[in-house]
Parts: sequence; structure tokens; C-alpha cells
Amino acid sequence: MQSSVRVGIVGATGAVGVELLELLERRNFPVGELRLLASARSAGRRVAFRGEELEVRETREAELAGLDYLFLCAGAEQSRTLGPLGVKAGAVVIDNSSAFRMDPEVPLVVPEVNPEALRGHGGLIANPNCSTAITLMGLAPLHEAFGLEWMICSTYQAVSGAGAGGMEELTAGVEAWQRGEEGPREVFPHPIAFNLLPHVDRFEPGGYTREEHKMRDESRKILGLEGLPVSCTCVRVPVFRAHAISVTANFREPVDRETARAAVAAFPGAQLIDEPEANRYPLPLEVSGEMDCAVGRIRVDEALPNGLSLWVVGDQLWKGAALNALQIAETLEAQADAAGVTAARHSSSD
Amino acid sequence: MQSSVRVGIVGATGAVGVELLELLERRNFPVGELRLLASARSAGRRVAFRGEELEVRETREAELAGLDYLFLCAGAEQSRTLGPLGVKAGAVVIDNSSAFRMDPEVPLVVPEVNPEALRGHGGLIANPNCSTAITLMGLAPLHEAFGLEWMICSTYQAVSGAGAGGMEELTAGVEAWQRGEEGPREVFPHPIAFNLLPHVDRFEPGGYTREEHKMRDESRKILGLEGLPVSCTCVRVPVFRAHAISVTANFREPVDRETARAAVAAFPGAQLIDEPEANRYPLPLEVSGEMDCAVGRIRVDEALPNGLSLWVVGDQLWKGAALNALQIAETLEAQADAAGVTAARHSSSD
Repeated sequence: MQSSVRVGIVGATGAVGVELLELLERRNFPVGELRLLASARSAGRRVAFRGEELEVRETREAELAGLDYLFLCAGAEQSRTLGPLGVKAGAVVIDNSSAFRMDPEVPLVVPEVNPEALRGHGGLIANPNCSTAITLMGLAPLHEAFGLEWMICSTYQAVSGAGAGGMEELTAGVEAWQRGEEGPREVFPHPIAFNLLPHVDRFEPGGYTREEHKMRDESRKILGLEGLPVSCTCVRVPVFRAHAISVTANFREPVDRETARAAVAAFPGAQLIDEPEANRYPLPLEVSGEMDCAVGRIRVDEALPNGLSLWVVGDQLWKGAALNALQIAETLEAQADAAGVTAARHSSSD
Repeated sequence: MQSSVRVGIVGATGAVGVELLELLERRNFPVGELRLLASARSAGRRVAFRGEELEVRETREAELAGLDYLFLCAGAEQSRTLGPLGVKAGAVVIDNSSAFRMDPEVPLVVPEVNPEALRGHGGLIANPNCSTAITLMGLAPLHEAFGLEWMICSTYQAVSGAGAGGMEELTAGVEAWQRGEEGPREVFPHPIAFNLLPHVDRFEPGGYTREEHKMRDESRKILGLEGLPVSCTCVRVPVFRAHAISVTANFREPVDRETARAAVAAFPGAQLIDEPEANRYPLPLEVSGEMDCAVGRIRVDEALPNGLSLWVVGDQLWKGAALNALQIAETLEAQADAAGVTAARHSSSD
């Protein structure tokens, strides 16, 4: 691949933007030009990329011209404006927010699960909710093997899901606790250190949160299972950057543990860590900074007719956000390569 | 009530024993004599009770004589020996360990749920597993209202469940993290600070843990529902002393949110905290040091035909251990009072 792809990042100094920069470098994405965009407050900051210093510029419409890929990592409100502008300017826009995920015209993609959804996209592609993407890395191979009927999930979500401010609030909360004081509650509605908040995103009528409904709706869309029954309880926990999900699911076909383990082990992007006799199972501290999601505690569920229970852990900032977004671009590049169009497009920007 | 009850505590200096002492005082249990027993290592320590200093003595068979109630708070191995000895010596033995819980001759009691199981006991009464007792404080009123069919739980268990050493290891782990070092792994198999361990008690064949099977087996026994399908995932989290449980359950009768909330609110020992619109739901930090278990996030489950999902939080050292044990004694006292036998028995020890 030639280093000829023109990439823009909106929100380049935020928690996800910073990780995306690191991943572009670590995964040798063929970046020819890199445009780092952020709020006026962050404009002028200098950021290292491949040994060079790049200046962060303020996000403006004019900055969106001449890009092959535009990654939006600055929240749903900005995405709603910048997404269509980016597409109009000719970029493939990969949006990390919830703004377009449920738009039937917009593919919502976990590349290992539904890469086919990228074909014929209209320029805008949505990156899923973090818990959803990570859960599906454990569940998709089991769905392929046994046919998913319904699922119940409880999440254990890291503070990184609330951005850099969430991680700072956990650190500050621990320090406050050591001084015998109550922790801050600026990012989260209650102190997060040594606590559990059964509240991620806003509440909706009926008592579910929007995060819990994202898990339901996005799982249905990505798996192509309209009406899939999904019930979820989403909980914020005092962990820095890896989400964990306790999944119990029922399947159409009879299940068994060894087939389930083999299916997970063979699935790209999933790592089977399932040796309970050796105290080996997925741990947030070990999965932080890992590309693969870890899957373990796989067992034939004792309460359900064809059920499996499992424990899935993934880096929230990577597979839950920046990595999956970059993998979408990588998949598009590979699809274009296969179709023989990459060289032609890239030659114009060499 | 006269202050005439002779009470012994084995494990008086451990995490649960210390809380039991505090609760005996706070709840004005009519203690006439208090015998504090512990390992040889702790013998000689002096402990305050109602303004007096009491000396901790080494646990020996001779110390078990002449007691009305003997609380065993020193682990299953000690309980297996001391339980029968205590009964033989004439005490009602309330055992906090798992040693006798599934013995069909031994009542396993949450006083708000199945006090009738105490009638006709043979001297030995088992105190349930902490997660089980707390879960049932939310689930029992819903079972009464709708008829429980099966349930799926994911736990968020505080480090106090592993005793004082568990709490010390979390503190030490936080300090290690601040120095940039890995946390200790003496009490837990992996560092617990900023981490999640899907591993409580030992693994059993098939991949469930013993803790997960306690939830299943003890729930069946306490609710009197033989064969109740229960599937549980038990997870240790970096929280000091309150357990939380995400419960999804299906019922025989149609469910609705307001009936469910009213049933919980009316249940003794349960506090309904369920105002999501005001960000009010049960939080481990708020429930620590509370007698009541808190129940919230009650909603009609979207994936099940007659399902409810809820979030239950209880103080692990209190309702999960010392408080429930003391409530068993309080219930026995009240039952004896009602039968007119208390005064007779107590007069002998005045």
C-alpha cells in the first residue's frame, strides 16, 4: 500500500482522537496527509505523529476538503453537522458518535462481524456503541455456530467511555477518598471511585437508559436480526479503560462448551482466555491496550434450554471506539484494493 | 426484654465479627454476657462493647458452655467442628459459613423471607451467602407478587466478601497503582484495584464457580422453590463493602412496574430507591453502613414474556453477613417471647 491516504480527525485531542492517532501509526495505515482538527480551545497544540510534530487546527468546513477519510470523534452534535459536510466534500466519513447509527441509509459496522454492510455505502459509516461492539466480538461467533435467539447482558463499563474527563474524575475521586472527602461529580452524577453507577447515558420512558437501548438496537442492526430480544443493564464501574460484559444468551441449536470455545478461538479479533483451572479469564487490566477482545468464562447455561453464559472484555478506547473506526477504513481500503481502484484514487493525491 | 442473653462470637476480631459487635450494640440486643473468641493469635486483644473493655479469648471447647447464642464467623472449616460442639453445649448456633447451608436438617434463613423455617430447628441455623441474601431482599417481594419462574443474575461483589484482608488488598492496590506498580495478589488471584475478577470462590466442573452455585442452591432453599432455574455470573469489583446484583427474572403472572415497586416498598428490610428521572438509584457508597437493602432500576424487561429487571444493593458485612445473623437471633427471641418462654429461659442466667 502506498502512504497516500488523506486522513482527517475531528476531536484529535480528545480521548478517542488521541488513541486513533496512535493506532494509525501502530497499524501502519498508509497515511499520506493527516489533518488534526479540534475545538478552538485546542487549536495550536502540537501533536507527534511518526516522529513529526503536527499542529492541531480549528475545525472549520474548509478543512474538510480534499480528504479520503474523515473520522469524527467529537460527539453526536458535531457529527450531525460535520457528517454531511464531510461527505459533500468528498470524504468517507467514519462517525464515532450515535448520531447516524440507526439511520437505515448508514451502515453500522464491526468489520469482523458485518463487513458486507460497507458495500454500496453513501459516504457516511457509523462506528457502534462501545459496549455493543465489544459484546458482539464474543457473541457473533456463537451466533454463527448456534443461531442467537435472545440475550441478557449486564455491563461493567470503564470511565473512559465518558472521555478523558471520566478518567480524570476517577483519579480525582480516589485522591479525594484518601483525604477522607467525597469524590467529585462533574462528569458522572455520583462519585465513581469505589462505587457503581447503574446509569450510563440518559434515562428513557420505561426505565431503561439510552445506553441499554443502544445495545439492543445496534446489536439487531449489526447482526441483521430485526426484533432480536435484548435486555441490558448498563453499569459504570471504577475501571479506567476496558469494558466487561456478562452475557447470557439463548440459541436455536443445542449448544456445547467445546464448540463454543472453538468458534470464539477461530473468530478474528477475539482471543479465547478460558482456563478457569489456571485462574485465566479476561481481565480489564490485562485487556487494556490490546487490539483483541478477550472472551472467557464460557459455560453451558444452567437456567436456559440452549443457553451459554460468557464474559467479554475489550479496550473501550480501542475496539470500543478508535480501533473499530480505523478497521472500518482498513476494510474499505482492502475492498477497494480487491476491486483494483485504490491505486487510481490514490494516484491523484500522491 | 431483659439484658440477659448470653452471646458468644467465634471470629470476634474478623471483618464480620467486628460488625456483629457493633450491631449487637446499635440494635440493643439484650446481651447479658458476651464472650469474644478468636484464634490464639488474637487472644488477649481488648475490644470495646457498650463502654466496657472485653478481652478476646482463644476459642476452645470449654468456652462454648453456658451460651444462649453462638455466632460462628470464622470460616467453614472451624464451623464444621464448632457447630456441633456449640449445639451439644446447649447454644443456638448461628453459622455464617457455607458449612451447613445445604444440610436438609439445618434451616437457611433470611428472616424477612422465610422466618417460618426457624420453627423446630435443631440448634444449628445457617446464615446465607452474602450475594444470595441481598438478591433475595429485592426478589422475594416480586416472587410474592408475581411468582418467580427463573432468574439470571450478574453480581458486582465488594472486596469485604473476602474479609478484612480483601479490603486491605484493595487499599494497597490503589497505592501501588499510584506508584506505578502492580497491585498485590495475595487475597485475590489478580490485582483488584481498577480491575474486575469474574471469579469468586473456586471453579467447579462445567465452568461455574462455587459462589455461582451457592446463589442457585441457596435461593432455591430459602424461597422453597426446588429446581428453580438460576444462572449467575459472580464478579469481584473494586468496591469496599456493598454488593450489587443485576437481576433479570421471569414470572408466572403478568408483571407491571408499579405493582413491582409497591411490593418492594412494602417489604421489610428493602428500601425502594427508584427515581431515575432524579438520578436516584441504589449506590454501593450510599448503602454501605445501611441496614436496609436498596432496590431500584425496576423495569418491565424488554426481552422476556413476563420479565422484570432490577438492581439490588446491600451492605455485604451487614445484610450479607452480621446483620442477617443477628436478625436470626432477634427473630428467635421474638418467636420465644410470643410463645412465653423467653422469661423462663432467661431467668436462669440473670
